[in-house]
Amino acid sequence: MSTTHEDTEEQNLAYNVFARACVSRGTLEHVTGRWGGLTLGALHEGSMRFNELRRRVDGVSEKMLSQTLHALERDGLVHREAQPTNPPRVDYELTPLGREVAERLMTLIQFVEGRMDDVLAARERYDARRGAR
Amino acid sequence: MSTTHEDTEEQNLAYNVFARACVSRGTLEHVTGRWGGLTLGALHEGSMRFNELRRRVDGVSEKMLSQTLHALERDGLVHREAQPTNPPRVDYELTPLGREVAERLMTLIQFVEGRMDDVLAARERYDARRGAR
Repeated sequence: MSTTHEDTEEQNLAYNVFARACVSRGTLEHVTGRWGGLTLGALHEGSMRFNELRRRVDGVSEKMLSQTLHALERDGLVHREAQPTNPPRVDYELTPLGREVAERLMTLIQFVEGRMDDVLAARERYDARRGAR
Repeated sequence: MSTTHEDTEEQNLAYNVFARACVSRGTLEHVTGRWGGLTLGALHEGSMRFNELRRRVDGVSEKMLSQTLHALERDGLVHREAQPTNPPRVDYELTPLGREVAERLMTLIQFVEGRMDDVLAARERYDARRGAR
């Protein structure tokens, strides 16, 4: 048990998203950024080709999706598989690490989607208070 | 059980972050945006005053922190409490809904922090492949 405790402490010392220079902050942004999060969420449903992804991540441009996929591939979260067909066919899928990240992200996304009625009610109360001042 | 199932289906029909016009996408961005995520994470440790938060969320400007807190307050995730002291003292804390969101976000953040060695190893492999082309 003491080993587990020490491992946890070492991790906390090593990487900390709250520190502006920590490299983990960049990866968190790849994972939770506007397009990164939706891309991981889409691939959580299964492997997809570029154009399938583009349709699923509604609103993303070709350039932004391409940049997003490169960043996620470089971080080891997405695997790009070019099939030796003619024309070449490229599939994107989550790596085992990417799947673990995507599962935690989807837990957050589904919770937010499920509580949007509360969020919208809070906005109404907030705006009414502001209007009353 | 069938009620639960129907409830879930209704939620899925009502809000969907993958649809560009869905209001839930904005809230997800407040929660996972660069400063929103770190602010929720900081408040997950306990209530804080503005300047405490600014120190904890290393690198955030006064203006960005102020905008971030307003968006989170409007969404019902953060509660702002002005104490009737002189000078006035303002505390920020998570609402019950904000705590539930922050818990899921911290699960994701801590997972990413804990796997950064794997992420950095993946980056090295990716860059080596690119260099070898």
